[in-house]
Amino acid sequence: MRIRVPDDFHVHLRSGQMLTDVLPFTTRQFARALVMPNVPPILNAADVTRYRQEICALAPGSFQPLMAFKITPNTTTETIFDAHAAGAIAGKVYPLDITTGSEDGCAEIRDLFPCFDLLDQLGMVLSLHGEVPGVDDIDAETEFLPTLREIASAFPRLRIVLEHITTAEAVRVVESLPYTVAATITVHHLYLTMNDVHHGKLHPHNFCMPTAKRKRDRDALRAAATGGNPKFFLGTDTAPHEVNKKECADGCAGVFSAPVAIPLLVQLFDEMGVLDRRWEFASGFGARHYGLPLNDGTIELVAEPWVIQERYGIVVPF
Amino acid sequence: MRIRVPDDFHVHLRSGQMLTDVLPFTTRQFARALVMPNVPPILNAADVTRYRQEICALAPGSFQPLMAFKITPNTTTETIFDAHAAGAIAGKVYPLDITTGSEDGCAEIRDLFPCFDLLDQLGMVLSLHGEVPGVDDIDAETEFLPTLREIASAFPRLRIVLEHITTAEAVRVVESLPYTVAATITVHHLYLTMNDVHHGKLHPHNFCMPTAKRKRDRDALRAAATGGNPKFFLGTDTAPHEVNKKECADGCAGVFSAPVAIPLLVQLFDEMGVLDRRWEFASGFGARHYGLPLNDGTIELVAEPWVIQERYGIVVPF
Repeated sequence: MRIRVPDDFHVHLRSGQMLTDVLPFTTRQFARALVMPNVPPILNAADVTRYRQEICALAPGSFQPLMAFKITPNTTTETIFDAHAAGAIAGKVYPLDITTGSEDGCAEIRDLFPCFDLLDQLGMVLSLHGEVPGVDDIDAETEFLPTLREIASAFPRLRIVLEHITTAEAVRVVESLPYTVAATITVHHLYLTMNDVHHGKLHPHNFCMPTAKRKRDRDALRAAATGGNPKFFLGTDTAPHEVNKKECADGCAGVFSAPVAIPLLVQLFDEMGVLDRRWEFASGFGARHYGLPLNDGTIELVAEPWVIQERYGIVVPF
Repeated sequence: MRIRVPDDFHVHLRSGQMLTDVLPFTTRQFARALVMPNVPPILNAADVTRYRQEICALAPGSFQPLMAFKITPNTTTETIFDAHAAGAIAGKVYPLDITTGSEDGCAEIRDLFPCFDLLDQLGMVLSLHGEVPGVDDIDAETEFLPTLREIASAFPRLRIVLEHITTAEAVRVVESLPYTVAATITVHHLYLTMNDVHHGKLHPHNFCMPTAKRKRDRDALRAAATGGNPKFFLGTDTAPHEVNKKECADGCAGVFSAPVAIPLLVQLFDEMGVLDRRWEFASGFGARHYGLPLNDGTIELVAEPWVIQERYGIVVPF
């Protein structure tokens, strides 16, 4: 059976040696990937250009990195114009201190509305880490949903992506909003529940932000991912950290799923009997939302045993 | 100001070198401590006698360990008679695989009702780890509460302790049940919320079972602990693990609070303005529930700076 080559609309590739180590797992499976701008911080046109060059120097010619930049309280309209001119297709907003590389995140999202207006005018996409800081972890995403409604209402043409959703409530709200509002879903959130992170034992390699929630949330994500609604598409949020920054007293948030992302996704879609007709989750709906052409290539699926390494360099995989 | 010497109605002292390392922190602050029977497993009279001897050989004469044994699906009535004769004052029930040392825990609690009947006849206390296995972590304690009601209803004279409660709902249900049903509250659950465990960063040294819940739950525990209701008393659940069994891929549950338990509790009661009249939480209500005399001694509180070590031997403290 052949499936269309997928895109990953949410990856963390890092830089330097880490980039060298992890990039092949993404380029091997995906035609394109939207590279998140938190680590290293991508704040302006110069950062976008330099980071794309660093990635392209290590990637095969068939792979196309899609670039984003971070919108912070210091971002100016000029910064956005220039980043757009440098080829960035999305501006990403992190709440203050919510996850890795969000020390310069946003405390009051309404302060960024002038930036959102400009994204809208330029045809760029607004990418949101949708959690409210200072709120109990389990409620942090749900409490962001009124803000999502407010942004969607204030900017009715702006294309918005609520990233890495984890709750049934987020699925419901994204479904209820206009076509301009979509969401990415990770592979690990299609498998994990909170108990895989912090029940009985603590499992840092399953820990990410937002954290996995209840079983019923996981099942709602599975239904959304396999249901054929173009509002939901794949963004793996693969996020490598050195093992000693995960297995420590103050562990970083992030699941490194790149080596296993597509096999796990194919397995799930196959088990749910929808691999033949719902693969647009990984290969179509994201491109549509971002206004990009579909990939031409296809992959032949083969059922051969393979081995997941215990570590890839200094990173432990999902 | 002087306060009555406290008791700790829930400690994990371990054995061997770990016991030697951690015991002084408990004996220095508490006149008595109910020693939990999970690690090492205390399953019968012989275990009770041997473990008490091991503890007493290392403890000052002023300290009295209170002994418990673990009720498993294999526990017989004869076992309970003998454990009682050996001086055990409580039988502890762990749900299967819920935390450290619960591999022989209970899958169906009704199967243990004959044991509970005998505890009742012998005047022993039933100690419950109140979480339902296989349930989403945040709901695991709440979903146990109907079982607590059922046990209390089936055994109206049996003294029951719901251990280390973490939710406002558990406070409410324990309050609503007869005087025979009480609950312990740990020091760390009076301070932590879920965000201190798994939000933004992952903090294994704050991870225990049951996990810390929402802010409103923490506040309900504070109100219960300082409210003067004799149904709520101190059980620190101090639970040491070697640092490399906490900071790893598969981290053990347990917070080592012994070195800081009483100072943190005094600080909280003082901040809440109830240290003078609510100290029975730590020095009276537990003894009353277990039918033990009050301690005679008092401690003089002194406001002197002191240093919490980064590690005590191979254990990281709360």
